[in-house]
Amino acid sequence: MMMKMRCLSFVLLLVAMLMPGRLYARVETVSSPNGDIAVNFDVKDGIPIYNVSFQGRQVIRDSRLGLELVSAKSNSDFNNFDNKQTVDQNSLYDGFSMLTTKFKSFDETWQPVWGEESNIRNHYNEMAVTLFQEALNRYIIVRFRVYDDGLGFRYEFPQQANLNYFVIKEEHSQFAMPGDLTAWWIAGDYDTQEYEFTRSRLSEIRRLLPGTITPNASQEQFSATGVQTALQLKTDDGIYINLHEAALVDYPCMHLNLDDKNMVFESWLTPDAQGNKGYMQTPCNTPWRTIMIVDDARKVLASRLILNLNEPCKIEDTSWIKPVKYMGVWWELITGKNTWNYTDQLPSVKLGETDYSKLTPNGKHGATNENVKRYIDFAAANGFDQLLIEGWNEGWEDWFGNSKDYVFDFVTPYPDFDIKMLNEYAHSKGMRLMMHHETSSSVRNYERHLEEAYKLMDKYGYNSVKTGYVGNIIPRGEHHYGQWMVNHYQYCVEQAAKHHIMVNAHEAVRPTGLCRTWPNLIGNESALGTEYQAFAGTQPGHTAILPFTRLQGGPMDYTPGIVEMDIAKFSPEKQTHVLSTICGQLALYVTLYSPLQMAADLPENYARFMDAFQFIKDVPVDWERSVYLEAEPMEYVTIARKDKHSDAWFVGCVTGKTGHDSAFKLDFLDEGRKYEATIYADAKDADYRNNPQAYVITKKKVTAKTLLKLHSAAGGGFAISIKPL
Amino acid sequence: MMMKMRCLSFVLLLVAMLMPGRLYARVETVSSPNGDIAVNFDVKDGIPIYNVSFQGRQVIRDSRLGLELVSAKSNSDFNNFDNKQTVDQNSLYDGFSMLTTKFKSFDETWQPVWGEESNIRNHYNEMAVTLFQEALNRYIIVRFRVYDDGLGFRYEFPQQANLNYFVIKEEHSQFAMPGDLTAWWIAGDYDTQEYEFTRSRLSEIRRLLPGTITPNASQEQFSATGVQTALQLKTDDGIYINLHEAALVDYPCMHLNLDDKNMVFESWLTPDAQGNKGYMQTPCNTPWRTIMIVDDARKVLASRLILNLNEPCKIEDTSWIKPVKYMGVWWELITGKNTWNYTDQLPSVKLGETDYSKLTPNGKHGATNENVKRYIDFAAANGFDQLLIEGWNEGWEDWFGNSKDYVFDFVTPYPDFDIKMLNEYAHSKGMRLMMHHETSSSVRNYERHLEEAYKLMDKYGYNSVKTGYVGNIIPRGEHHYGQWMVNHYQYCVEQAAKHHIMVNAHEAVRPTGLCRTWPNLIGNESALGTEYQAFAGTQPGHTAILPFTRLQGGPMDYTPGIVEMDIAKFSPEKQTHVLSTICGQLALYVTLYSPLQMAADLPENYARFMDAFQFIKDVPVDWERSVYLEAEPMEYVTIARKDKHSDAWFVGCVTGKTGHDSAFKLDFLDEGRKYEATIYADAKDADYRNNPQAYVITKKKVTAKTLLKLHSAAGGGFAISIKPL
Repeated sequence: MMMKMRCLSFVLLLVAMLMPGRLYARVETVSSPNGDIAVNFDVKDGIPIYNVSFQGRQVIRDSRLGLELVSAKSNSDFNNFDNKQTVDQNSLYDGFSMLTTKFKSFDETWQPVWGEESNIRNHYNEMAVTLFQEALNRYIIVRFRVYDDGLGFRYEFPQQANLNYFVIKEEHSQFAMPGDLTAWWIAGDYDTQEYEFTRSRLSEIRRLLPGTITPNASQEQFSATGVQTALQLKTDDGIYINLHEAALVDYPCMHLNLDDKNMVFESWLTPDAQGNKGYMQTPCNTPWRTIMIVDDARKVLASRLILNLNEPCKIEDTSWIKPVKYMGVWWELITGKNTWNYTDQLPSVKLGETDYSKLTPNGKHGATNENVKRYIDFAAANGFDQLLIEGWNEGWEDWFGNSKDYVFDFVTPYPDFDIKMLNEYAHSKGMRLMMHHETSSSVRNYERHLEEAYKLMDKYGYNSVKTGYVGNIIPRGEHHYGQWMVNHYQYCVEQAAKHHIMVNAHEAVRPTGLCRTWPNLIGNESALGTEYQAFAGTQPGHTAILPFTRLQGGPMDYTPGIVEMDIAKFSPEKQTHVLSTICGQLALYVTLYSPLQMAADLPENYARFMDAFQFIKDVPVDWERSVYLEAEPMEYVTIARKDKHSDAWFVGCVTGKTGHDSAFKLDFLDEGRKYEATIYADAKDADYRNNPQAYVITKKKVTAKTLLKLHSAAGGGFAISIKPL
Repeated sequence: MMMKMRCLSFVLLLVAMLMPGRLYARVETVSSPNGDIAVNFDVKDGIPIYNVSFQGRQVIRDSRLGLELVSAKSNSDFNNFDNKQTVDQNSLYDGFSMLTTKFKSFDETWQPVWGEESNIRNHYNEMAVTLFQEALNRYIIVRFRVYDDGLGFRYEFPQQANLNYFVIKEEHSQFAMPGDLTAWWIAGDYDTQEYEFTRSRLSEIRRLLPGTITPNASQEQFSATGVQTALQLKTDDGIYINLHEAALVDYPCMHLNLDDKNMVFESWLTPDAQGNKGYMQTPCNTPWRTIMIVDDARKVLASRLILNLNEPCKIEDTSWIKPVKYMGVWWELITGKNTWNYTDQLPSVKLGETDYSKLTPNGKHGATNENVKRYIDFAAANGFDQLLIEGWNEGWEDWFGNSKDYVFDFVTPYPDFDIKMLNEYAHSKGMRLMMHHETSSSVRNYERHLEEAYKLMDKYGYNSVKTGYVGNIIPRGEHHYGQWMVNHYQYCVEQAAKHHIMVNAHEAVRPTGLCRTWPNLIGNESALGTEYQAFAGTQPGHTAILPFTRLQGGPMDYTPGIVEMDIAKFSPEKQTHVLSTICGQLALYVTLYSPLQMAADLPENYARFMDAFQFIKDVPVDWERSVYLEAEPMEYVTIARKDKHSDAWFVGCVTGKTGHDSAFKLDFLDEGRKYEATIYADAKDADYRNNPQAYVITKKKVTAKTLLKLHSAAGGGFAISIKPL
């Protein structure tokens, strides 16, 4: 059916209202509440420009703002479409003049459903500049919010006759660096963030980047100097700059591409199958582009900039959202000890046609009734909330790498997995099972089954799901970080909320603080997690950079707690090692904040180290207060946190390649109160490569006056639980 | 999460079993039951070749068979993927030898749920050739089924170690024509079939094709000599050849590309967003490629080749599937008299955010309570089953041409459409309302809302839905006729069946006889329908070619019955005319078979021609028997059909540009029985352009011996109802 629609006779009220009597051009400035950070905005020759200073020193030099469009339309008559095309039509980056500038201050303290602290202050000064493009009679707003530890800005597109629907070719937001800074970075990629971080000068990125690309199930780099956010930077005089984005909703994920002649980063959005980047309808806005600027690495970890730039919680009743400590039938699959798939008998299977009851099991299936019950028994005996089971459902025989559309149905268990019995068994021991939805990135298929899958969870009492997006996206040509998929992840979180289901999405787009708005998004992967310790090992220092980068956007389901480091013990043919000491693993429960924490190793392994395992049993997953004691990216991170539900404190320290000598006062403890500290520390001869299981546990009376001095091995660390006497 | 899967240790039982002792090469032949059609198959230099003869004359010269692959994999280990790549790997078109040949005969008579006749004979001889590709240890099967009026062949891919998952780059099925035939064709296009047909020699297609391209909301041609199926051809000695496909499921729609030097057609599949054409998992097969060969144009219309090559009905209880005669709040929208949208106040709307109750109606909204009740009153008084209402739901203000994702929710009526009241009102008069789901080709959005939309229909008593796919497909880059969308249309039909809902899909892929398997697919558009008479007029002869082409695959919702031909009467600014006489419109209810027939004009117009309207009231939509009296593509079609539920017969004749003098015996009537015929014929001075409303109605006693002679004007025709006395 082909038809023409009549042009909408839209009265240009708004724009008429705004038609300038006299336009002006002068520098507008907004500063942080404490005055340390100042943002200057100007329009030069029609081009929006901003710069940022910190304590009087310029840290962001003059940088352009704007967007380039593929096409723009002011009504829905496709026959008039071409007539409306002009060269200028696609420019939202020049021809501007300042129309109005509005200032505002804001200060509130809000309470997250879960988090690193129970109260978060949101205090900023705001400047909103309305930019008018006279030649096209269009206008946009650039809004800045400036905090004491950084700022965010975003583009807003009010509904108007001449800017109604538009397609983004590229966003051109620049971040001009003050020099050849030190950066901790991973390569820009449309489909994965699962790379190890590199510390280098900006000028070294081009040379070093190719060597940082390790194979992944789905990956596509776009530039020789493209990197991902959150990007941690440092000036030679000790200013820490962190670039990221906040509140990524219905928009493509932003990368940063470096002009390494001029040391200018520019936004680089993730494209769709046709190379376009964003499909917009006014009124709308971009996510916030964030620039954290602090003079102490510990302040990076203490910053709530990203969370504060997200919208308040949209879930009215959040009583069903609860932090989770869990174990899983998982590490034995990752290490190759057992398998996700039930049989090796067929080269491929077809759901609803393949009769598994007639097939021969391969004898290595992990998700069997017997094995799951064994895990439940151990996890329940040690106070865990949930047990994750992967490989419970039909389809794992050929799920990966085949661009298979109908790959899983998310509701049909394998013959040796009695879903009813196992859930009842877990419930009888005070636990829940955790659902697993690996989509194989066949996204249409997942959405077709989503409602039934959630209903199955409701039926058996699951309240959390780990989702996965391994491999190339179907619809083919789309990317993990494009607008299409960003829309999908959001859809799942919102649908799950209706079912009171918590979501932990792996291989999804990196988090940008949306857990404030949707606290049922309790976890993400979006970085290289513990599993890589089984694949090839992960260099020490990785867990000491994650809090500065990946964790800025939200919690990570890192799955720590490995105590058996020799992968050959699981699969004799494998020669890889987990590159960490046991104490380095314990510390992660404190240093890598998450409301979702796993004890990833096997029951039989924990059974060999029950004294060390005690810390994992004791450590909480929700906090009233956090104190950042020591920090330097990739070298060491030491954090103390107070349990949200008791007066107990917990301290963790992880180190990089060089080890670390810690010295800090416990002055965060209540004045004059006595506590007992249990210290889990690397033994003198501990070594992440050759002697990872050497630790010493000591108990000690402490007060707020106590000064602790502790040595941590390279790739090691310590963990301390402090309980009032 | 990145991982490696172990190679599946698949024992090559089947292939081992088949390993040839001695391969042979000789021509294999299979003939039609009556011997008229003979198919010869051979493998020459490893290349599969076939040809077809009709009554001893070769009508398909030696033609190649085979497919070209993008990649082929024998297991799901993506790391081994590249190792398995070889040049030959992508060839399924050479290196073959014949392994086995199996023959079979089949003869059954089946009863369609609805159709042109109540009994259909399915009688063929079959030859299945297993082709072995020794170098790659792979094999495929080419299966031929030969009927007295044509043949079908398809490729079958059994499950095997070396052909498990594969991606199709192109299918290379050739149809070598016996000369420079006459063809009735429309341009090949990935997104539309809404073009007028052209009659020309094959050698003229290249020159004429550009002139046949009229604008459409979504269109993409791929070749200067590409055409669509069903393609009607004719040799100079009067043999009619028709090329099409049957049972298109989970595979891209096939076009035909002409090598006009050698007069060889070759299959050209519809690509996906990345240019790939099909994603396959063995065991699987292609649709049937059909070649109809008859010596009389009437036999083309009488053929059941396409239906017979489809699978039997998969719906157990079909009692809820009922043919439908309906009217609609539709033509007044198409002609511009009224609008789909409720308001013109905004340049765009957002579902769930835009509050329509606060907006000013444009005063021209068609789907209002008052207007719908007016239609119900008239339709009920004249015995119609249902009333279609378009523009009943929120979102029509900016639904088109904006690549808008969340464009409709399919459940929220406009403020002036009381869905509960109107359904109850219709039911109180013995009618149902017909649901309308325009998707704007935002397919993910439709699938997200599909279940709730069907539930709404269940709630209010709708049992049929007209769907639409106007504009470019979202996911962007996909095409209306690609595998992705073919999969979607099928998904909707199968989901609808669960709700006992009948589907009439517009802008969907052209039908290929699937209505045999899924008889709740009661209609499709997939061709230029009556609406174009309002846009620009449609040349006489269009309705005389549709039965040879578009209708071969299944019924079309053509929406005939226009009695007011001057579009200016609806919209003064429009100067277009419906290019048909009233009698030409009446005839369509007989000549364009469909279980779903609309009386498309407005009640007030029918009220002016109640005597002619009587035929539309009388004519049934389901038949016991059909007799094809006269036929020549694009010139005239005369068909007699017997009502399935009475002894009444109905005859229709439509003509092309030259008019037609009919002369035929009524020998299809019961011998010796007396009938009264009511003849609706063009008046002597009737003219489709200048005097379209001139008709004469005469009553006449007739018997099986009666010879009728009737003149039809150009763009006209006649309609006859014959009732036993």
